[in-house]
Amino acid sequence: MRTGSSRGSLRVLGIDPGLTRCGVGVVDVAPDRSAQLVHVGVVRSDADAPIEERLAVIAAGLRAVLEAHGPDVVAVERVFAQHNRQTVMGTAQASGIALLIAGERGIPAATHTPSEVKAAITGYGNADKRQVQTMVARVLRLEELPKPADAADALALALCHAWRGAPAASGRSSSPLTPAQRAWADAERLARR
Amino acid sequence: MRTGSSRGSLRVLGIDPGLTRCGVGVVDVAPDRSAQLVHVGVVRSDADAPIEERLAVIAAGLRAVLEAHGPDVVAVERVFAQHNRQTVMGTAQASGIALLIAGERGIPAATHTPSEVKAAITGYGNADKRQVQTMVARVLRLEELPKPADAADALALALCHAWRGAPAASGRSSSPLTPAQRAWADAERLARR
Repeated sequence: MRTGSSRGSLRVLGIDPGLTRCGVGVVDVAPDRSAQLVHVGVVRSDADAPIEERLAVIAAGLRAVLEAHGPDVVAVERVFAQHNRQTVMGTAQASGIALLIAGERGIPAATHTPSEVKAAITGYGNADKRQVQTMVARVLRLEELPKPADAADALALALCHAWRGAPAASGRSSSPLTPAQRAWADAERLARR
Repeated sequence: MRTGSSRGSLRVLGIDPGLTRCGVGVVDVAPDRSAQLVHVGVVRSDADAPIEERLAVIAAGLRAVLEAHGPDVVAVERVFAQHNRQTVMGTAQASGIALLIAGERGIPAATHTPSEVKAAITGYGNADKRQVQTMVARVLRLEELPKPADAADALALALCHAWRGAPAASGRSSSPLTPAQRAWADAERLARR
């Protein structure tokens, strides 16, 4: 399964949850923060299908990515109730499926907010999508910006998780940070103010 | 698997989704609307465990009920973004798991709002929990009110689904109603105004 991963690197599967499109991105991140693209894609479900079938299609697609690439950890975008009420329930359900497929295999999962991701990638919590995508492409040495946006967001989530020192999804204390990670985390906190 | 179900009856698994407690109730409902209790219980997850493990525990518990009782259809309480923001995301994620386990096995699923359930059970969409529980116990000829409340809610959901003529979760047209069901549905609509 592991093809491009060097020893000591962390393989992260980032998932941008959604009912219609779930972005998935797998990266290997070395201790020096350099990163390598392993996989990027989108799991889709048919908007005309019943919700239970859509969720089953998404679960099967995410499991296939997990099986193919064997990540050490899964990072999922955190969904908030107050945003975009019409679609938020479907997004929350898809995020539940994303966390479930990690939990079923005993792989740790974590969630990160969009502003945490932006701050981790660009140093600025209010960065726009284009800035995030440009930085993701640069870090991963891609010739083009990753598309669609959901796939780019999933890669950004995965990088964010590796760089932030992996705060847990809930109910679990954060991993200890190195001094460099702590300095970075402090800078991010300032950037988010 | 089918033990108490008579021919022509519909076996419904009702699920009241939650991260800490998922109520589950299985009933057989005959065409004359009489109903029989098959199973009632609660699937719990440890509030101190990471979210991905909690969702895996809930999925395993719900799958066990599905395997043991082989319902024809799964009815899940519909979650709204505007209610109780602090827990709504966890509830939405659990509802996604409930719908997923149906979809994975090709069992149709449907969602019903709390007021639909109250109206179907008591004829009154603003009925309180106690009124709903009392009616559920009477219909199922139980000597005590079902406990905890999540288990009672799951039974109410299952009865509601069978009695309402099974509107689909989404993206699917309703089953045709019999004249009696239509009259009942009309009465419920009036009761909810």
